[in-house]
Amino acid sequence: MLGFTTPEMVAAAANAGILGSLPLGLTSAEKSLQSITAVKKLTSSPFSVNLFVYAKKVAPSSPDTSTLKLFYEDNNLRFPNIPTEDPYPSYQELIEVIIEQKIPVVSFTFGIPAKYIIEKLKNKGIILIGVATSVEEAKQIQNKGLNIVVAQGIEAGGHRGSFNAGELPQIGLMSLLPQVIDEVKIPVIGAGGLSQGRGIAAAFVLGAQGVQIGSAFLRSKESAASVIHKQLISSLKDTGTVLTNAWTGRFARMIPNDFIKQLPLEQILPYPYQNYMSASLRQCGKEQNRSDIQTLYAGQSAKYAKDEPVAEIIKNLITSAEHSLDNANKL
Amino acid sequence: MLGFTTPEMVAAAANAGILGSLPLGLTSAEKSLQSITAVKKLTSSPFSVNLFVYAKKVAPSSPDTSTLKLFYEDNNLRFPNIPTEDPYPSYQELIEVIIEQKIPVVSFTFGIPAKYIIEKLKNKGIILIGVATSVEEAKQIQNKGLNIVVAQGIEAGGHRGSFNAGELPQIGLMSLLPQVIDEVKIPVIGAGGLSQGRGIAAAFVLGAQGVQIGSAFLRSKESAASVIHKQLISSLKDTGTVLTNAWTGRFARMIPNDFIKQLPLEQILPYPYQNYMSASLRQCGKEQNRSDIQTLYAGQSAKYAKDEPVAEIIKNLITSAEHSLDNANKL
Repeated sequence: MLGFTTPEMVAAAANAGILGSLPLGLTSAEKSLQSITAVKKLTSSPFSVNLFVYAKKVAPSSPDTSTLKLFYEDNNLRFPNIPTEDPYPSYQELIEVIIEQKIPVVSFTFGIPAKYIIEKLKNKGIILIGVATSVEEAKQIQNKGLNIVVAQGIEAGGHRGSFNAGELPQIGLMSLLPQVIDEVKIPVIGAGGLSQGRGIAAAFVLGAQGVQIGSAFLRSKESAASVIHKQLISSLKDTGTVLTNAWTGRFARMIPNDFIKQLPLEQILPYPYQNYMSASLRQCGKEQNRSDIQTLYAGQSAKYAKDEPVAEIIKNLITSAEHSLDNANKL
Repeated sequence: MLGFTTPEMVAAAANAGILGSLPLGLTSAEKSLQSITAVKKLTSSPFSVNLFVYAKKVAPSSPDTSTLKLFYEDNNLRFPNIPTEDPYPSYQELIEVIIEQKIPVVSFTFGIPAKYIIEKLKNKGIILIGVATSVEEAKQIQNKGLNIVVAQGIEAGGHRGSFNAGELPQIGLMSLLPQVIDEVKIPVIGAGGLSQGRGIAAAFVLGAQGVQIGSAFLRSKESAASVIHKQLISSLKDTGTVLTNAWTGRFARMIPNDFIKQLPLEQILPYPYQNYMSASLRQCGKEQNRSDIQTLYAGQSAKYAKDEPVAEIIKNLITSAEHSLDNANKL
């Protein structure tokens, strides 16, 4: 959860016996090494890293950013120049650090890495995970040789992992998970809406070999989410999130705010240019604890997130999931 | 499943020990009595009926129906006059028949019935079920005194049951079901994407007191779905359905076809006027077994529907659900 996961969160997850994931999307090799080192100081247990895989595209030429500019002016922030090319480090730049640091598991979002990267990492014994929002994407992930696939239901908070062209897949986990399991041979991890033990148990009943948990940790002691973000999550209703590409250029599930409502659709730049152009505004919103100009990521079950240490959250999720499975038998 | 459920299907379900549901939405008292009588000839077991509850609105004045008209012309069909008022019978007109016929369970879609209807039916010992697509709707259903609520996930085929104004709720069952269960005291039935035993088991693990199954019966021997509709369901992919209001004026999940793609959004009349104006076209498509001008309802797990008798489908679903729950314990 880029922007919300801290080294402390990853280490706490690892120490609690689950696989914490350090988000390194759009991050430089130098900063990635710093984060990895920070986690290692807090745990000797294995953890994974997550990278963003997408094709770099040319910058949009003279796009209309007038509304975004008004938000910057309102907040006395310097409006950034539109970059002439994708300003972020590529995921390829992190491969050496990952190998040197002996990271055992790497997951990829927004796409499937290049074949030479897959082979390089697999030759080092590193386990590779892809994220799919449809059966078709899951098949592609398997066919390209990744080891595990995450089936990300429509319930999931944050960015959709979708990478195929066309309509954004919007499939509920109850439908997606069994279909992915039936169509691929590699292990499948369920994701989306699993912020409580019952959901985790249900995912296993559907046939998942594992689950991926995000929103459940947003309100944790180790989370970097702002105070107001945490507050809004705790009072979230089931209808309280939307899918929008207003902040980054890619669709993500979050709590809607003024910025999302005001920004005309035709003024949204392609990813990651919109992400770059809105970065200072979001940062300002986060620092000033304002809900109107922050990315308030949350899944459809985020209201179950607890204001507790990560270790406590994990313990309770496992106990509750086991309890649900035990009870299932009595039905 | 109005248009697809037959008396034979309802009776087969009842005979197999589950609660079949006879759809009587938009149906006259006379035709309803015929259908009820037809079911009763085939079973002595209890079954339920489903009614559509919505506020009748004035007809749209001089709407643009030019594209719809072209479809009628292409198919040499007489274009209907736009009715000056809602042309369908009200659900209120069926209450006497339901009471006289001693129907034990009545479910309501698109809204909550009037208080005097609720009291009248409850005084006769009839159990009332409402359909909710959000926690808020579920609470309203409980507060108005209905006995049971269906939590309908985004996965569900056919019409969304949504009845509150504003954005259409699009909540995955994995998130919706637990939240509804936690927020109401009446029993909750899970619906959406449950066309297989694993899903049914998962819904019970989430805490459902029952499940509602639709798409799983679309390909059954007793289904009135057309041959091409059944074929398209069997080869459906997880990304193969859309939510559209093009055919009826209300959003429903179906397999997209030419009509949906061609009809301009601003030419869609409010429900049930669009439903009325498109009726002959849909009927023609169904009779001629054409996919381009039919309502191809299907949920996100519809591909699991089997070409078998209803009794067989039910037996296999129950066996498979029990098997999934047994296995859950071994995890």
